[in-house]
Amino acid sequence: MAENTMTLVLIRHGESEWNKLNLFTGWTDVELTDTGRKEAAEGGRALKADGYDFDICYTSYLKRAIHTLQIVLDNMDRHWLPVEKTWRLNERHYGALQGLNKSETAEKYGEEQVKIWRRSFDVRPPALEAGDERDAHIQPAYRDVDPADVPYAECLKDTIARAMPYFNETILPQMRAGKRVLIAAHGNSLRALVKEFDKLSDEEIIGVNIPTGVPLVYTFDQDMNVLDKHYVGDPATIDAKINKVANQGKKAQ
Amino acid sequence: MAENTMTLVLIRHGESEWNKLNLFTGWTDVELTDTGRKEAAEGGRALKADGYDFDICYTSYLKRAIHTLQIVLDNMDRHWLPVEKTWRLNERHYGALQGLNKSETAEKYGEEQVKIWRRSFDVRPPALEAGDERDAHIQPAYRDVDPADVPYAECLKDTIARAMPYFNETILPQMRAGKRVLIAAHGNSLRALVKEFDKLSDEEIIGVNIPTGVPLVYTFDQDMNVLDKHYVGDPATIDAKINKVANQGKKAQ
Repeated sequence: MAENTMTLVLIRHGESEWNKLNLFTGWTDVELTDTGRKEAAEGGRALKADGYDFDICYTSYLKRAIHTLQIVLDNMDRHWLPVEKTWRLNERHYGALQGLNKSETAEKYGEEQVKIWRRSFDVRPPALEAGDERDAHIQPAYRDVDPADVPYAECLKDTIARAMPYFNETILPQMRAGKRVLIAAHGNSLRALVKEFDKLSDEEIIGVNIPTGVPLVYTFDQDMNVLDKHYVGDPATIDAKINKVANQGKKAQ
Repeated sequence: MAENTMTLVLIRHGESEWNKLNLFTGWTDVELTDTGRKEAAEGGRALKADGYDFDICYTSYLKRAIHTLQIVLDNMDRHWLPVEKTWRLNERHYGALQGLNKSETAEKYGEEQVKIWRRSFDVRPPALEAGDERDAHIQPAYRDVDPADVPYAECLKDTIARAMPYFNETILPQMRAGKRVLIAAHGNSLRALVKEFDKLSDEEIIGVNIPTGVPLVYTFDQDMNVLDKHYVGDPATIDAKINKVANQGKKAQ
């Protein structure tokens, strides 16, 4: 790439224990599966093989993203790079749906309602009650976050509203200073970024599925126009992963 | 502890591949063994069981310390805590001895000479030649460090001279601001801190052996006087670990 371009790589965490069980996860802090760890390792090896390098990395407060990043960096011999963790890159908060099975929820509320909660831009799922054991206000990880900022449920619009200020105020200045940035995060916090980068409408972003564990490389000019966007890895594997994510909301067959 | 005290916990990385092989390691970036990972996990579980918690963590650029810290935090459910990495907490640089077997080096140079290199305060081991594949000046991890600061060999005095400014300028202000600090580092970078805290002479620090994977808790008043110092874990295990470290410089039996 020419000088004065900026490179940013996004990677979505690999399979988690609850992905595997088909449960709504949100801010529930579940671990990667062995498959998820393998996906992360493959992502790291692919980046290394293609000569990518970074100066600073960002991730969420959730272990499936933190561990994905750690595994990627270990596989790039870049374990020593600085890593910033922020709740603002957490997955969308799924409210009272967190812990429910996606297929069962579809049976109970109807596939259309679940699709709305999963895929609408601005319809929130049912909120958690304050003090519910799933409420982040009573969890140690969020003790230093302004309680007014901690959600009880989020639609994608809400996720964008708390992720983008962090990107604009903290990450973008690093990119403008010439730093090569890697972000390991979640389906919906990455959608927030992709919507902004690709200038997608509220409707268009709903149809975008980011595959797990596959590095997505953006190259920008200094005005944040996208000069190039591509995945690093095997195209057939990537297509299969995109289709898998798109099918998760369907009723069990 | 009363108010206005400051707590700092130190943990030395667990067994590495080269500890196991009895090689001089220094800045060589070798991985933990399974035993080392178990030590780190036990350290984390012990801290959690005794109710310890932290606000910020520090470690070196070397994976045996970084991974020790990650394992400790995972076992405390504190993976989301901020972690700062710095080359200034690296192990003492062992110069041209890096990669040599400790027992063979004792046979070649004499046990007394090896003891001097291992245990004297201000006698450096033989320096690496510039451009040697072991030279940190040509390794990516140190690309952002002032080349004049990157050593070719260090005595303990040198390690103290580059570790203490970081402690005083970066870590201590956090402690004074009320943050609970955890440092995962190496035998000699931790000795640098212990010498300062315990006001030990150049001779006294030589005899201090910090066991691997065992959290060492310091409590200070605001003038950095030590109010309490203790290990967290089983006393018999700790004693056995201290004796093991002390015997590494001896010739093979």
